[in-house]
Amino acid sequence: MTGSEFGKNFKIITFGESHGAGIGVVIDGIKPGLKISVKEIQKELDRRRPGQSRITTQRKEADAVEIISGIFEGKTLGSPICLLIRNQDYRSKDYNDIKKLFRPGHAGYTYLKKYGIRDYRGGGRSSGRETAARVAAGAIAKKELAKKHIKIIGYVKEIAGIKAEKFDEKEIEKNNVRCADKNAAKKMEQAIIDAIKKKDSVGGIVEVIVKGVPVGLGEPVFSKLDAELAKALMSIGAVKGFEIGKGFEIAKMKGSQANDEIRKVKGKVKFLSNNAGGILGGISNGDDIIMRIAVKPTSSISQKQKTLDKSLKNAFIETKGRHDPCICPRVVPVAEAMVALVLQDLIQTQKARKSK
Amino acid sequence: MTGSEFGKNFKIITFGESHGAGIGVVIDGIKPGLKISVKEIQKELDRRRPGQSRITTQRKEADAVEIISGIFEGKTLGSPICLLIRNQDYRSKDYNDIKKLFRPGHAGYTYLKKYGIRDYRGGGRSSGRETAARVAAGAIAKKELAKKHIKIIGYVKEIAGIKAEKFDEKEIEKNNVRCADKNAAKKMEQAIIDAIKKKDSVGGIVEVIVKGVPVGLGEPVFSKLDAELAKALMSIGAVKGFEIGKGFEIAKMKGSQANDEIRKVKGKVKFLSNNAGGILGGISNGDDIIMRIAVKPTSSISQKQKTLDKSLKNAFIETKGRHDPCICPRVVPVAEAMVALVLQDLIQTQKARKSK
Amino acid sequence: MTGSEFGKNFKIITFGESHGAGIGVVIDGIKPGLKISVKEIQKELDRRRPGQSRITTQRKEADAVEIISGIFEGKTLGSPICLLIRNQDYRSKDYNDIKKLFRPGHAGYTYLKKYGIRDYRGGGRSSGRETAARVAAGAIAKKELAKKHIKIIGYVKEIAGIKAEKFDEKEIEKNNVRCADKNAAKKMEQAIIDAIKKKDSVGGIVEVIVKGVPVGLGEPVFSKLDAELAKALMSIGAVKGFEIGKGFEIAKMKGSQANDEIRKVKGKVKFLSNNAGGILGGISNGDDIIMRIAVKPTSSISQKQKTLDKSLKNAFIETKGRHDPCICPRVVPVAEAMVALVLQDLIQTQKARKSK
Amino acid sequence: MTGSEFGKNFKIITFGESHGAGIGVVIDGIKPGLKISVKEIQKELDRRRPGQSRITTQRKEADAVEIISGIFEGKTLGSPICLLIRNQDYRSKDYNDIKKLFRPGHAGYTYLKKYGIRDYRGGGRSSGRETAARVAAGAIAKKELAKKHIKIIGYVKEIAGIKAEKFDEKEIEKNNVRCADKNAAKKMEQAIIDAIKKKDSVGGIVEVIVKGVPVGLGEPVFSKLDAELAKALMSIGAVKGFEIGKGFEIAKMKGSQANDEIRKVKGKVKFLSNNAGGILGGISNGDDIIMRIAVKPTSSISQKQKTLDKSLKNAFIETKGRHDPCICPRVVPVAEAMVALVLQDLIQTQKARKSK
Repeated sequence: MTGSEFGKNFKIITFGESHGAGIGVVIDGIKPGLKISVKEIQKELDRRRPGQSRITTQRKEADAVEIISGIFEGKTLGSPICLLIRNQDYRSKDYNDIKKLFRPGHAGYTYLKKYGIRDYRGGGRSSGRETAARVAAGAIAKKELAKKHIKIIGYVKEIAGIKAEKFDEKEIEKNNVRCADKNAAKKMEQAIIDAIKKKDSVGGIVEVIVKGVPVGLGEPVFSKLDAELAKALMSIGAVKGFEIGKGFEIAKMKGSQANDEIRKVKGKVKFLSNNAGGILGGISNGDDIIMRIAVKPTSSISQKQKTLDKSLKNAFIETKGRHDPCICPRVVPVAEAMVALVLQDLIQTQKARKSK
Repeated sequence: MTGSEFGKNFKIITFGESHGAGIGVVIDGIKPGLKISVKEIQKELDRRRPGQSRITTQRKEADAVEIISGIFEGKTLGSPICLLIRNQDYRSKDYNDIKKLFRPGHAGYTYLKKYGIRDYRGGGRSSGRETAARVAAGAIAKKELAKKHIKIIGYVKEIAGIKAEKFDEKEIEKNNVRCADKNAAKKMEQAIIDAIKKKDSVGGIVEVIVKGVPVGLGEPVFSKLDAELAKALMSIGAVKGFEIGKGFEIAKMKGSQANDEIRKVKGKVKFLSNNAGGILGGISNGDDIIMRIAVKPTSSISQKQKTLDKSLKNAFIETKGRHDPCICPRVVPVAEAMVALVLQDLIQTQKARKSK
Repeated sequence: MTGSEFGKNFKIITFGESHGAGIGVVIDGIKPGLKISVKEIQKELDRRRPGQSRITTQRKEADAVEIISGIFEGKTLGSPICLLIRNQDYRSKDYNDIKKLFRPGHAGYTYLKKYGIRDYRGGGRSSGRETAARVAAGAIAKKELAKKHIKIIGYVKEIAGIKAEKFDEKEIEKNNVRCADKNAAKKMEQAIIDAIKKKDSVGGIVEVIVKGVPVGLGEPVFSKLDAELAKALMSIGAVKGFEIGKGFEIAKMKGSQANDEIRKVKGKVKFLSNNAGGILGGISNGDDIIMRIAVKPTSSISQKQKTLDKSLKNAFIETKGRHDPCICPRVVPVAEAMVALVLQDLIQTQKARKSK
Repeated sequence: MTGSEFGKNFKIITFGESHGAGIGVVIDGIKPGLKISVKEIQKELDRRRPGQSRITTQRKEADAVEIISGIFEGKTLGSPICLLIRNQDYRSKDYNDIKKLFRPGHAGYTYLKKYGIRDYRGGGRSSGRETAARVAAGAIAKKELAKKHIKIIGYVKEIAGIKAEKFDEKEIEKNNVRCADKNAAKKMEQAIIDAIKKKDSVGGIVEVIVKGVPVGLGEPVFSKLDAELAKALMSIGAVKGFEIGKGFEIAKMKGSQANDEIRKVKGKVKFLSNNAGGILGGISNGDDIIMRIAVKPTSSISQKQKTLDKSLKNAFIETKGRHDPCICPRVVPVAEAMVALVLQDLIQTQKARKSK
C-alpha cells in the first residue's frame, strides 16, 4: 500500500496536483460487465464541483471526466478503469504569495519537510482538488452498491454551531449547504455569508447514513468496518474527528443503556436501538450505519496571520485567491464516495472468502 | 491485506482465540540487530493483563510470552518474530449460556452471520484477549521508537462522566484507572465500583499523546498519519469515536481561531497553538500528536437483557463470567501499542522513499 | 508485502529459523467451515520430513505440527490458523565451522551483508527447514482444491542427467526419489549413492502437473497465473529455472507448430496440443497445467572448497553435518504446496471480482 | 495486490486497452526531487515502438508520452506520476474476423471465460501494447538505478535456433534484432524474413544482464530476488520460461561444479564462477545478475488454423492485420523495464528496514 492507494480487492489509486495537467484515478478489481456511463460519473462530480453556488469557491472548473480505459461499449471489462479530469482554470498568479510563504493550517510546511520539494500552486497534491478523483471512483462504487440496494446518504448536520433539528432527506440537495433541515439550512448559509464578510471561515459536522447494508461486512480484527470507515473519512483533508453510532456520547452511558437489545419482530432480527451505529465487533449487523465527521473551518482566510517564509523566517500572510468559506457542503459527496469505496471493497473481500 | 494484518513495512499479523491453545503475533519487516528481551515485552503485557486490580476481570492469565523466532542471541535477525502466549484459564463452563444466546453489544451474532460458524467460548476471535498480541508487538515498536526519542503516553481522561482536570504524567501508572489526575482517579474508581454493585458497566475517554515525532510522517493522500491512527484505534473493540487535536470541538471554531499560527522561536519552528493535534495535511508537523478515543461501557453486564438464541428466537440473557466493569484502564496499553505500530511503520515507509 | 508473506486473499506468513524454538505459519483469509485435522497436515509434512530414506539427511525431526488457532471443533473459523512445528534435533556442535566460515552456494554471506547479523546454525532462516511451514499451509490449500476436484501431482523427472522415460503416477510415492518411472528411479537412486561416496551432490528437474483447473484463474497483467507460479516455485531454495508447457524448447519452434489449435470434441472445448502448458494470456485455459523447475545440486558437500571466513579472509571449508545429497525428492511436496497456495489464492481473487 | 499492480514500495499500476483511448501507468512511491524529462521516457518507448524496422509490425503509433502528474519544474514531487500514451492507429476494420473467432495462442478465449466480456479489438487488455506502459515506468526506474551505477543490458541471445556466439554490447542497438553478435544478427534477421514469407513466425531467447547491483537485494523467503525477477519476466506475454545463472543446465551438474567458490582478490570479495547468476539465498551477492527468458513464436500467423467461433463452434481462422513475425527484439526493452522495476522496488524495501 502506497499513500495514494485505497482498498484491496476493489482498489483505487488517485493522481494529480491542483494546478498540473490534470487529476484522475485508476480503479482495479472492478466487476466486469457493469454498465457505466460518463454521465453517471459526471453527475457525482458536479455535486463536488467548485462554483456551484454563492458559498463555494469561484474557481472555474468544468471537472469534465474522460474515460481512458476499462470500459468497452458502455460496460466494464474487468481491466483497470482510468478516469481523467483535466485542470482548466490555473490562475497561478493568485499563488505568488504562497510560493514564498506557508499558509497556517495548510500542508505546505509539512510537504516541504517530508518531500524536500513542493508544488506550491494551489496546494499541489495536498489540495482538496484531489478529492474529485475520489468522487469519480465513488460514482462507480455507488452504482454497484445501488444494484444491491445499498444507499448512502450524506448531509450537513451542523455548521458554525447551528444544528439540523430534523432529517428530511429530500431537502438535502435543495439547499446550498446540503442540510437535511430546511430552516437550519437557511441559518447555516447566513452564517457562512457572515464569515465571508469577516474574512473568516466556519466548520461543521457531516453525517453519513448507509441503508441496506447486509450483515457480515468488515474484516476483524484490524480491517473492521468501523476502522476502515474511520480511515476513509479521516483521509479527507479538514476532517479532525470520526464517530460511529452514539460516538463520543457513549463514553457517558452505562452498559445497560448502551447495549442494543435484540428482538425478532415480524420474522426479522431487529435491534431495539442503534447506539452501535450498525456495527458489532467490526462487522455490519444489518442496521443502518450512522457516522459523523468533524470538519474544521477552511484554513484559507484573508485575515493577516503569523507564519514563516520558505527560508523559515517570521512573516505575515493574508491568503488571497478563491476559497470556500465553509467546506462542509462539498465534503458531503466526498464522504459518500469514501464510504462507497469501503463498502464495495469489503463486499468483494467477503466474496473472496466464500470460495466454493 | 487480510483482516488480521496491520502495517506495511513494519507489519504484524495476530492470531488466536480467547479459549483456544493460545494467541500470538508474527512481526515482519523488523530492523535487524535490535536488542530485545522477553522481559521488555512482558512488562507491557503485564499492563494489559487481566486481574491486575480489583476493578479488572478476575480471569487468571499469566500472559507469559514466548519468543518462537526472529531473535538470536538477544538481537533481532530481521526475519519474522513470532511471539506466542498460551491460554491458561479456560473456564469454559462459564460460557454455557453464551453457547446458546447472543450477548447484546457483543459480536456473536455478526460473527455467526459472517462466517457461518463461531467459537462462542469467551468471544473467540472477537475477544479483547486478542489485543494481548498487539501489546506484545507494540512493545517492540516502542523500543524502536524510544531509540529515536519518540514517547507515547496513554491515559484515561474521562470515566463515567468524571473528567481528569489536570495532567500529571507520573500519576498514570500509580492508580488503578490509569488517570493522569490523582483526585479524578479516585472518583473514577468509585464510579466503577458503584457500577459493579448495580450489575452495570461504564465507559470513558482515553487520550494518547506522542512526543518527539519528527516532521514528515504520514503518507498522503490516503495513508495520512491521522487516517492511519484512526484506523488503528478504531480497530480496538469498544472504541466508538476518534478525534485528533481539537477534534469535534473544531467544528464550532472559526478559521481565525482554528489555524495554528507559526513562529520561529529560539531558532526553532514553533506552532503557537496545537489545534491540529500535530498533523497538517496528514503529515506530522513536529508538534505533539494528541488524540482521543471514546470507549463504550463494557457490553457484558449481569442484568437481564432482551436477546435472541442461536435459532433466532426471542430470549433473555444475564451474562455471567468475569468481566471488566470498565475497559478503559486496560485499553490504555493497547491504544499505545497501536499508535506505536502506526508510527514505526510510517517511519520505515518514509525511509523507503529516501533511497539514494 | 513483506518477504515472509505469500498470497493476497488466501495468504500465509511463515516464521522460524532452522535451530530456533520452532518454525510455523499463519494462514489468513481461509474459508470458514472447512474440516481439517492435524492428521491431514501431518501426512504432507511426513512427505517432506528429513530421515525418510537412506538418501535423505539423517537429521531427526518428527516435524509434529500443532494447531494453535483458527480451528474449532475440527473446522476452520475463518480466523487466522497458526500452525507450529517445534524444532527438536539441534545438533549445534555440527555447526561450529560454519559459525566462522561461509559455505559456498549458501546464503551465509548474503544474509550477513543484508541484515548485518546472521543465525549461522544450520542456515538459520535460509535453511530449507522453513519449507516445512509451506508444506503445512499447502496441506490446507490442497484440501480446499480437492473439494473442487483440482489435483496436483509433483514428481522427479530427471536426476543427474537420468530422465524419466514414462509417467506412471502410482509409482511416484513408491520409490525413494519420487520418480514416476520405476526403472529410472533405480538409476537415479544409484546416482545419488554414487555422489555420496564421492562427497558430492547432484541436481535434477521436478515437474508439477495440475489437473482439473477451471478456465479463468490468473490476474493479468502482472499476476498472471504463470507469473505467480514462477515466483512461487523460484522462491524455493535451490531452484534456478522455471518453465511452463514447452518452456525453453518453444524458442526453437515456429508459430504454426507452437499454437495449440482448438476444436469442439464431444461437446467440450479441446486444445489439440498443450504447448502452452494450460495457460493463455496468463489465464488458465482448462487444460492441464504443466511446469518444470531446475533444482541445483545440494550446496553442502564434504569436499574441500575455497571460501572466506567471517572477517573476509581466504580460507577453506569441508562442510560436515547431515545433508541431502540430492534435494529433488524432498522438493516435490514443497513444489506441490507452493502450487496449491497460488491456485487457492487466485480462486479466491477471482471470486472477489464476481460480487453480485 | 490487484492484477494490474506491480511492486510494493516503488509501485506501478498500468491501464489501457490496445484500441481504447490510450494506455498508461501510475507510479507511486517514487523518490522526490529526481530530475526526469519526457525525452528520457520517450527514448525508451521508441525502443519498443512498433514500426521501427522492416521486421516489426507496421502499425503506426508515435507512442508519444504525456506527463499528467507528479513532476513539477522537471523534478519528481514524490506524489504519483501518471504517464499517458494516446492510441492513434486504430484500424478496427482489421479486427472484424477476430470479433467472431478466437485466435489460437491468443487470450481471447480465456479472457471471455474469465471476465464474461472481452474487448476483441487487437487483443484489448491482453495486447502486447500494454507493455508500453511498463517501458515508460521502467525508464524512470532506470534513471534512479543509473544514479547508483546499476546498469541493465538486455539483448537477443537466440532466434529460430540461431545463437549469438559472442557478446559485443555495442552491437545490440545497431542491428534490427538487438543481438549482441553482429554475424548472428544477420542470420537471425534472415530467419525472420523467411518466416514472414512462409506466413509463419519464430521465437527465441532474450538474456538480461545487470551490472553493479549491491549485495543485499531480495526479501526472503518469498520475495527472493530471483523469485521476483521470475514473476516480473513471466508476466510479459509470450514468455514461457525463466532461468537464472546456469539455469536448467545446473540440473546436470554436481555440487562441486555448481558451487561458486569465493576468494578475496585485490581486497574485494570475488566469486570464482557465477553459476548462481549473482543471487544466493534469494539475495544479490554483488556479482552480475544473469537471466534468460524463453519467448514463444508470435501467435498471430496468416496460416489457416483450427479454432472456435464465439458461439464455440468449430471454425478456421487466418489472422490478418499487422503483426511482428518475431517479438524478441521488442521484448528486450520490456524485459529491461521489468528488471528495473524489481530492482528499484527492492532497493527501497531494503531501505525501509534500515530505519535508524
